Amino acid sequence: MSQDCLFCGIVAGDVPGAKVAETETTYAFMDIQPGSDGHLLVVPKRHSTDLRDIPSADLAEVAIESQRIAKHVFDAWGADGVNLLNCCGEDAWQTVFHFHMHLIPRYRDKTKDRLRLPFEPGVRGDAELIEDLASSMRSALQEG
Amino acid sequence: MSQDCLFCGIVAGDVPGAKVAETETTYAFMDIQPGSDGHLLVVPKRHSTDLRDIPSADLAEVAIESQRIAKHVFDAWGADGVNLLNCCGEDAWQTVFHFHMHLIPRYRDKTKDRLRLPFEPGVRGDAELIEDLASSMRSALQEG
Repeated sequence: MSQDCLFCGIVAGDVPGAKVAETETTYAFMDIQPGSDGHLLVVPKRHSTDLRDIPSADLAEVAIESQRIAKHVFDAWGADGVNLLNCCGEDAWQTVFHFHMHLIPRYRDKTKDRLRLPFEPGVRGDAELIEDLASSMRSALQEG
Repeated sequence: MSQDCLFCGIVAGDVPGAKVAETETTYAFMDIQPGSDGHLLVVPKRHSTDLRDIPSADLAEVAIESQRIAKHVFDAWGADGVNLLNCCGEDAWQTVFHFHMHLIPRYRDKTKDRLRLPFEPGVRGDAELIEDLASSMRSALQEG
């Protein structure tokens, strides 16, 4: 547990939160600033800051628990789709620095769903730049 | 392999794609309609439609491989953050029906980054609705 971490406080029960589910390694609770009705967060109980430092075993458990809950949003809440979103770093919209996966149910009924596309779909990128970036990443991964 | 699946075609090498990395179970390649410079996709080699039907072992491998690549976008590409995004269902912006995790590097330099917030941050949801939804999901999960 990290001192002064909001989500560590929720997991420990020291801070109020609408709990949805709990496993040995994960904890799921409602987001109080929901992008859609039912927007919730799945976190590892053990503190990690973000995608860079979460142990891969915790990450896998968070993903699997997110999937388990996601399968229920269709029947339980009448959702039409679901998004998983992780934000790593302040420049990627992370605001609480305890790793969390957003699970955002989606609805055709827009009174329940306030999301808008985060980027313009269907716009082709520059092919040469894309190949250059792919090449530099292949090298980086080979070097470890 | 699923007939007529674009991503199965890329994994098999029948459709061109800028490959970034490959493991026994996963394949990573550049998105040709990038939301930011370096936007790529990590997919399971074995065909799944979406988050509802992907085997949990494949999902875990995709998450761990996404993390492995994400750790490199800071040094290799000078990114300032990274988002992971999965879209499950047409109503959640899914357009290719082979499970894929978007890995979207983020930059303070907005010439490299065309993303915008998908929802208004800091807007409190209705507390009673949130508790009702949490309660119905707890019940759904208990019933399996």
